[in-house]
Amino acid sequence: MKTILILNGPNLNLLGRREPDVYGARSFDDYLQELRAQYPDVQIDYFQSNHEGALIDKLHEVGFTIDGIVLNAGAYTHTSIALHDAIRAITAPVVEVHISNVHQREPFRHQSFISAACRGVICGFGLDSYRLAVEALVNSEK
Amino acid sequence: MKTILILNGPNLNLLGRREPDVYGARSFDDYLQELRAQYPDVQIDYFQSNHEGALIDKLHEVGFTIDGIVLNAGAYTHTSIALHDAIRAITAPVVEVHISNVHQREPFRHQSFISAACRGVICGFGLDSYRLAVEALVNSEK
Amino acid sequence: MKTILILNGPNLNLLGRREPDVYGARSFDDYLQELRAQYPDVQIDYFQSNHEGALIDKLHEVGFTIDGIVLNAGAYTHTSIALHDAIRAITAPVVEVHISNVHQREPFRHQSFISAACRGVICGFGLDSYRLAVEALVNSEK
Amino acid sequence: MKTILILNGPNLNLLGRREPDVYGARSFDDYLQELRAQYPDVQIDYFQSNHEGALIDKLHEVGFTIDGIVLNAGAYTHTSIALHDAIRAITAPVVEVHISNVHQREPFRHQSFISAACRGVICGFGLDSYRLAVEALVNSEK
Amino acid sequence: MKTILILNGPNLNLLGRREPDVYGARSFDDYLQELRAQYPDVQIDYFQSNHEGALIDKLHEVGFTIDGIVLNAGAYTHTSIALHDAIRAITAPVVEVHISNVHQREPFRHQSFISAACRGVICGFGLDSYRLAVEALVNSEK
Amino acid sequence: MKTILILNGPNLNLLGRREPDVYGARSFDDYLQELRAQYPDVQIDYFQSNHEGALIDKLHEVGFTIDGIVLNAGAYTHTSIALHDAIRAITAPVVEVHISNVHQREPFRHQSFISAACRGVICGFGLDSYRLAVEALVNSEK
Amino acid sequence: MKTILILNGPNLNLLGRREPDVYGARSFDDYLQELRAQYPDVQIDYFQSNHEGALIDKLHEVGFTIDGIVLNAGAYTHTSIALHDAIRAITAPVVEVHISNVHQREPFRHQSFISAACRGVICGFGLDSYRLAVEALVNSEK
Amino acid sequence: MKTILILNGPNLNLLGRREPDVYGARSFDDYLQELRAQYPDVQIDYFQSNHEGALIDKLHEVGFTIDGIVLNAGAYTHTSIALHDAIRAITAPVVEVHISNVHQREPFRHQSFISAACRGVICGFGLDSYRLAVEALVNSEK
Amino acid sequence: MKTILILNGPNLNLLGRREPDVYGARSFDDYLQELRAQYPDVQIDYFQSNHEGALIDKLHEVGFTIDGIVLNAGAYTHTSIALHDAIRAITAPVVEVHISNVHQREPFRHQSFISAACRGVICGFGLDSYRLAVEALVNSEK
Amino acid sequence: MKTILILNGPNLNLLGRREPDVYGARSFDDYLQELRAQYPDVQIDYFQSNHEGALIDKLHEVGFTIDGIVLNAGAYTHTSIALHDAIRAITAPVVEVHISNVHQREPFRHQSFISAACRGVICGFGLDSYRLAVEALVNSEK
Amino acid sequence: MKTILILNGPNLNLLGRREPDVYGARSFDDYLQELRAQYPDVQIDYFQSNHEGALIDKLHEVGFTIDGIVLNAGAYTHTSIALHDAIRAITAPVVEVHISNVHQREPFRHQSFISAACRGVICGFGLDSYRLAVEALVNSEK
Amino acid sequence: MKTILILNGPNLNLLGRREPDVYGARSFDDYLQELRAQYPDVQIDYFQSNHEGALIDKLHEVGFTIDGIVLNAGAYTHTSIALHDAIRAITAPVVEVHISNVHQREPFRHQSFISAACRGVICGFGLDSYRLAVEALVNSEK
Repeated sequence: MKTILILNGPNLNLLGRREPDVYGARSFDDYLQELRAQYPDVQIDYFQSNHEGALIDKLHEVGFTIDGIVLNAGAYTHTSIALHDAIRAITAPVVEVHISNVHQREPFRHQSFISAACRGVICGFGLDSYRLAVEALVNSEK
Repeated sequence: MKTILILNGPNLNLLGRREPDVYGARSFDDYLQELRAQYPDVQIDYFQSNHEGALIDKLHEVGFTIDGIVLNAGAYTHTSIALHDAIRAITAPVVEVHISNVHQREPFRHQSFISAACRGVICGFGLDSYRLAVEALVNSEK
Repeated sequence: MKTILILNGPNLNLLGRREPDVYGARSFDDYLQELRAQYPDVQIDYFQSNHEGALIDKLHEVGFTIDGIVLNAGAYTHTSIALHDAIRAITAPVVEVHISNVHQREPFRHQSFISAACRGVICGFGLDSYRLAVEALVNSEK
Repeated sequence: MKTILILNGPNLNLLGRREPDVYGARSFDDYLQELRAQYPDVQIDYFQSNHEGALIDKLHEVGFTIDGIVLNAGAYTHTSIALHDAIRAITAPVVEVHISNVHQREPFRHQSFISAACRGVICGFGLDSYRLAVEALVNSEK
Repeated sequence: MKTILILNGPNLNLLGRREPDVYGARSFDDYLQELRAQYPDVQIDYFQSNHEGALIDKLHEVGFTIDGIVLNAGAYTHTSIALHDAIRAITAPVVEVHISNVHQREPFRHQSFISAACRGVICGFGLDSYRLAVEALVNSEK
Repeated sequence: MKTILILNGPNLNLLGRREPDVYGARSFDDYLQELRAQYPDVQIDYFQSNHEGALIDKLHEVGFTIDGIVLNAGAYTHTSIALHDAIRAITAPVVEVHISNVHQREPFRHQSFISAACRGVICGFGLDSYRLAVEALVNSEK
Repeated sequence: MKTILILNGPNLNLLGRREPDVYGARSFDDYLQELRAQYPDVQIDYFQSNHEGALIDKLHEVGFTIDGIVLNAGAYTHTSIALHDAIRAITAPVVEVHISNVHQREPFRHQSFISAACRGVICGFGLDSYRLAVEALVNSEK
Repeated sequence: MKTILILNGPNLNLLGRREPDVYGARSFDDYLQELRAQYPDVQIDYFQSNHEGALIDKLHEVGFTIDGIVLNAGAYTHTSIALHDAIRAITAPVVEVHISNVHQREPFRHQSFISAACRGVICGFGLDSYRLAVEALVNSEK
Repeated sequence: MKTILILNGPNLNLLGRREPDVYGARSFDDYLQELRAQYPDVQIDYFQSNHEGALIDKLHEVGFTIDGIVLNAGAYTHTSIALHDAIRAITAPVVEVHISNVHQREPFRHQSFISAACRGVICGFGLDSYRLAVEALVNSEK
Repeated sequence: MKTILILNGPNLNLLGRREPDVYGARSFDDYLQELRAQYPDVQIDYFQSNHEGALIDKLHEVGFTIDGIVLNAGAYTHTSIALHDAIRAITAPVVEVHISNVHQREPFRHQSFISAACRGVICGFGLDSYRLAVEALVNSEK
Repeated sequence: MKTILILNGPNLNLLGRREPDVYGARSFDDYLQELRAQYPDVQIDYFQSNHEGALIDKLHEVGFTIDGIVLNAGAYTHTSIALHDAIRAITAPVVEVHISNVHQREPFRHQSFISAACRGVICGFGLDSYRLAVEALVNSEK
Repeated sequence: MKTILILNGPNLNLLGRREPDVYGARSFDDYLQELRAQYPDVQIDYFQSNHEGALIDKLHEVGFTIDGIVLNAGAYTHTSIALHDAIRAITAPVVEVHISNVHQREPFRHQSFISAACRGVICGFGLDSYRLAVEALVNSEK
C-alpha cells in the first residue's frame, strides 16, 4: 500500500470561504474524503500550514520514506527558494499543483520557484488537480 | 461516447528518434494504441503537424463540436500568439501538455503563450502527461 | 481601375463566430460585399490564411504589381519578422489594420513587428478600419 | 450638423517650417481649409497649444458636448498620463492621429500613453491622417 | 560523394529583387550554378520555403541521412524555437549562414534562436557565406 | 491659526463628473465645505490647475510661508520630476494624497516621482484621504 | 464599540532600540497606551510577530469578524504574496502603514506586494501613521 | 553683435534659495550681471519659466533668428520629448547646461531627452557652466 | 572568553544527506565538534531553523550581547529583506557564509539581500567557510 | 603658472585619419599647438595611450600634484570602472570631454562610467571641447 | 602576394593547455604551420596579446596597409568598445572568428561588441574557423 | 614549503593614499610584511598592476605551478571576462578577495565576473581579507 502526502500551503485552509469565484466553494476536508474514497489502496495523509518553515519541516520529515507528495505551495510557489531547496534535498517525488490556472491571473503568479525542483506540474483543474496528481504518482511509471 | 483530439505540434513526429534522454524512446503511435485501450469509451483522434497554420486550421475544424483537445504545441508553445487566439476562439476545452518538465530546461521554454487560453496545464510526466490530460477532460467536472 | 488586396491573417476566418464582444458579430464576407459596393471603381481582392508562410507567398505574388494591400496580420502582427521582411521586400504600399484597439488589450498585443515596414496603421474602428485603409490607399496622395 | 475639434499639440504650429522631410512642407492652416471644403456638413474647429495643461483644459471644455475630437498630441503622446486621464474623463470619442509613421522613428516614439484611452489610432498617412480620422468620426458606426 | 542541402527560409526566393543594397542583385539560382561548379564532387541540393513548417519537414526528411545542411533561416532565425528543436532533433550537422552582417542591422536581428543548435555560424560575406559553409562541411574535420 | 493649501492637479476639476466608479460622485467644492467645517481653526486654501507649471508656481508662491500643503498631483504624480524638485525646493511640509488606491490600478500609476520628496503619502480612502492629510499636518508632531 | 487590530510584522518588536534615526526612539508599547487613550471608544488589540505564517494565522483568526486591521508588515511588505492573499481572503478592511517614508529609502522598499490588497496606504508620519490609520478605519465612510 | 538667449526651466527661479548645497547660494540675476560684463559684445537675453509649454513657445519665438541658446531645462531635461522636438524644429544651435554634475545624483537625472537634439552638453561647473556655454556659442567654430 | 553563534537557515539540518556533491557528505554536528576543538577559547553556540521568523527571533535574542554571529541563511539569503533588517537592527557583527560557491550555481543564487547588512561575506570553501568566519570574528581588528 | 594634462584614450591617436565625418579631419597635434598658443600662461602637457592601464598609471603619476586633467577616455568611458576609481583616488580635478555629441550616437555610448567621478562633463563641440575644459579648469572658481 | 594578419586576444596563447574539451588540444603554432602550407601565396602574419591596448596598437599599425585581418578577440569580444572603435577606424577588412560556438556557452558570451564593426563573423568550427576566415578574405569578392 | 601569490589589480597601489575611509590608511607593503610574519612557512609573492593584460600574463606565468593565488582584481572584478577566462584556464586555485564589503557600495560593484571562476570569495574584512584567503589556501582541505 502506497502512502502519499497532500501538502497545502498558505491560505489554503480557507478553501470554501476565500474568493469562491477563484477557488470554488467547497472545503478541502470535504474534497479529501471523496478523494480517499477514490483511492482505497492509497493512504493519503494531509498537512496544511501557513508557515513556510513548517512546510519545509514536513517535507524533511516524510521526504525520505514516503511514496510521493502532492504540493500546493500557494503563494510561496512564487517566492520561496527554500522550498525549492527542500524539494531537491529529499528523495520522494513531488508534484506541484494549483487549483486555478495561475497563468490567467496576476503576472507575479506566472513565475514558480518550485517547478524546476518538482517531477511535474498540474494546474487549472479546480480541486480535480489534486486527483490528477495522485493519479500521476500512483499509476505513472516514467 | 466522447470524442477527444490529441493535437501534437512541431517535431513531435520524431518521438522515439529525437533526443531520447529528454523525450523517451517510445514512438507516439505505440503509446497511442495503449492509451486508446485504457479509454475504450472515448474516441481519441490524433493529428500532428509541424505547421503552425495547420494546427490552427485543425483547432478551427473541430473546436466547436469536439468534447476536448489535448494540445502539445511543442516549441510553438513559447512563440505563438496565433495559437492562443485560436484556442480562445473555439468553444471546446483545451488542455496544454508537455512530456518533459519544461521548467527544468532552457529559460525560453519557461514562458507559454498558450497557458492563459487553456483550461489547465500538465507537464513533466513523460507520455503519461497525455493520459492525465484525457483523464482531466473525461472525468473532471469543474 | 485600381486593384487592392485585403489580406487577413490567423483566426480572422472566424469573424462573427469568435469572441463577438471583441470582434463583432458580423462575418467578413458580409462586410466585404458592402465594402465593394462603396468602392465600385476599385477591385478589392481577398485572401485569408492561418499560415504565416501563405501570407508571405501571397505578398510576394501580388506585391510588385498591385496598387495597395490592406493587411490585418492578426496575431502574427506581434511575432513575425518574416512578414516585416516580406512587406519591405515588395513595392506595393501596405496599410496595417486592426479591428479592435489593440492598445486596450493584453500587453503582448501592444508591440507590432510590421508597423515599421508599413506605410501607416489604422486600428480600433471595428470593421470600418478596413474601409479607412482602402480610403487611405485610394484617395491619399502623401 | 456635427461638430468636430482638431486638437494639435506641441510643435505642430511649426508644420511646414519644421523638418519638412518628416512632416511635409505644407502649413496646417492651408491643409485645414481644404479639409473643411471636403466636409461641408461638418463644423471643424481647430485649437493648437504647446502647453499640456491647455490641451487638457480644451478637452474638458468641449469633451462633454462635441461629436468627436481628432487629437495629434505630438510628443505628449509618449509622456502624458494626464492627457490619457483627460480623454477617459470626457464622453466625446477621441481619435489619435500622427502625420508620420511613428514606428519608423526613435524607440521613444513607439510607446503611446494615450492610445488605450482613445477609440482608435491612425498614423503614417501624412496630413491625410486627419481626413481619415474625421471620416472615422463622421461616417463610422461602430 | 557527399550530399549537402542548402535550405533557404522566408523571402530568400526574392534574392536579386529584394532590397539589393542589403542582399545584392544576383538571383540565388544564378549563384547556385556557380557554387556547384566549384564543388564538382559534392551533390548540392536546394530547397526554399516561406513556411516555417515546410522547413521543419525538410529538415526531418533529410536530417538523418544527409552529410550536412547549410541553413539560412531568414527572419525565422530570430523567432523560431521550433527550428532550433528540429535542428537538435536530427543528426546531420547544420551550419547557419546569413548573407548580410546581421549585427549591423536592427536589434531584433541580433538574436538567433538557432545558433545554439547549429555546429557553427557564418555571416556577412554576401552570397560567399554559402560557399564558406559548404567548405566548412566538406573539408573540415573538427 | 494654521494655514494649509490643498493643491489639486490635472483632471481633478472634473471630480463628480469623471469616472464616478473610480473617483466618486461628489464634487470637490462640496467636500471642501464639509472639510473646512471640521477644522474651524485651520485656514484651508484651495487651488487646482491642469498645468504642471502652474502647480509649480503655486508651490513656490506659498511654499516658504504656509504651514503645510496637501498635494494630489493626479497623473503628474507619475511623470513629473519638476514637481519633485519644487517640493524639495520649498520648506513647507507636503503630504501626497490620492483618492483611489493607485496600487489597484494600471502599472504606470504604481510609480510616484513625488513620494520621495514628500513627508508622507496617504492613498485609497476616497475624499477622506484629504482629511487624513490635514489631520497629519495639523495634529502630528513627528 | 468597534474593535481594531494593530498587526506588526518583523523587527517592529525592536522599536525604540533599532536604528532610532529611522524609526524613532520610542517603544511601541509606550505609544500604544497613548493611542488607546485617544480612542476610548475603540478597542485596539495588538499582535506582533517575526513569523510570516503567524501574521497570516492572525489575519485568518480575526479577519472575518473584526472592524478593521492596521497592518505594518515591515519587510514582508516587499516580499510576501502570501500576505497579499491572506488580506484578500478575509473580509475586514486592512490599512497598510509604514513609520518611515519608504520611498526615501532603498529601492527594494519601494515595491509593496500588499498595497493592492489593502483599502489604502499611509506612510511617512512616524508612529502617527498608526493613528491616522485608526482614524481612517473608525471615522471614514468611503 | 551676436544675440544669445539663456533659457532656464522649472525651479531655476529659486536659485540661491533652493538647496544651496546643490545649486549654490547665489541668485541668477546676480550672476547674469557679471556674465554680461564678461561678454560686452554679446547681447544676452534671459527667460525663465516653470511651464514646459512656455519654454517651447520661447524656443519657437527666437529659434529661427537668434545666434544661439543656452538651455538649462531643469527637470524637464529628463522627461520632455516635446522640448527635444522643439530644439530639433528650430535652426539656432542650442547648448544644454546643468549647474550640478547630474551624474552624481539620482539615477532619474542621468538620462536626458534633450541631449541628442542639442549641439553639445556642459554640466557640473556650477554657474560657470553658463559662461562656458556662451563661450562655446560665441567663440567656437566647429 | 568570546561567545559566537553559528546560525544555520533552511535545509542545512540535512547536511550530509542532501545533495552530497554540492554540500559534502559530512553532518554539521560532526564538523561543529571539530571546529570547537580548534577554538578552545571561544564558546561557539549553534542554532538551526527552517523558519525565517525563528532566525529573526534568535538574532534579536542574542544580537545585542554576543560577540559575533556566523550566518548561513541558506535560501533565505536570496529572498529575505526581513533578515536584512534584523541584522541591521542588532549590534553584534554578522558574517555571511556559504558552503558552496553560490556564483557557480543558478542565477537566483547570485543575489543576496543580506550581504549589505553584514560585515563581510565568505563563500565557497566547503564547511571550512565557517572556520574562516569564526577566524574573522575572533582574530580580526578592522 | 598652472599645469594641466590632456589625457587621450584609445583610438584618439588616429584623429584626422579616423572617420573624419564623426571626429573631424584635423590631427590632435595640430590642434594642440593652437590651444597652447591660446593659453600662454598655462603649461599643457599631453599623453595618449590605447592601454587602459597606462591611462590609470598616468592619472596616478600626476594626479596628486597637477592643477587639472582634461580626460577624453574614448571608448573606455563606457566600460571602465577602473578609470572611475582612479579619478576618485586622486586629488586633481578631472573634466570629462568628448569631441562628438555622444548622445547622438549608438546607445552604448550614452552611458559613462566616469562622469560621476569627474568634476564636470563637456561634449559635442568638436576639438573645441578641449579648450572649454581648459577654460573650466583655469578660470572657473566653483 | 596578399598579406593577412591573424590577431589573437587574451588567453589564446594557452591553446592546447586550456580547457581542451572546449578549445581542443592542439597548440596554435602547430596549426599555423599547417595553415600557411595551405595558402602558399598568402603571407600570414601572427600576433597575440593579453593586453587590450596592444591589440588596438597592432590594428592601428597594420590596419591601413594590410589586405585583411582575422581577429579572435577572445573575451574582449564581449566587453571592448575600444576594439570596436579601432576596427571601424582602420580601412582593412576584419573578420571575427571564434573557435567554439559561443552561442552554446554562457549568456555573457552571446553578445559581441565587435561584430557590428567587422565584415563578417565565423564561429564554431574549431581551429578551422581561422582557415575559413582566411578563405573569406582571400577568395571572396563581395 | 607552499608558495602563494597575492595579485592586486588597478588602483590598489594607492592603498593608504586613496579614499582612506573606504580602504583604510595603511599601505599594502606595510601590511604584507606583517602577513608574511604570520605565515613563516609560506612564501608569499606579490604583484600589482593597473593593466588587465599584465594581470592575465601573471596568472598564466605562475598559474600552473603555484599552490594558490589571492586575487583582488579591483574594478576589473566587475568588467573583465578575460580574467574569468584566465582563472579558468590555469590549474592553481584562486581566491577572490575585496577589502571593503562591495555589497554596501554602488550597484555596479555588486556583480563579479570572476567569482564563478574562483574557488571562493572573501570580502569586507579590510586588509584582513587577505589573511583569511591565505588561511583558506594553506589550511583548508575542501
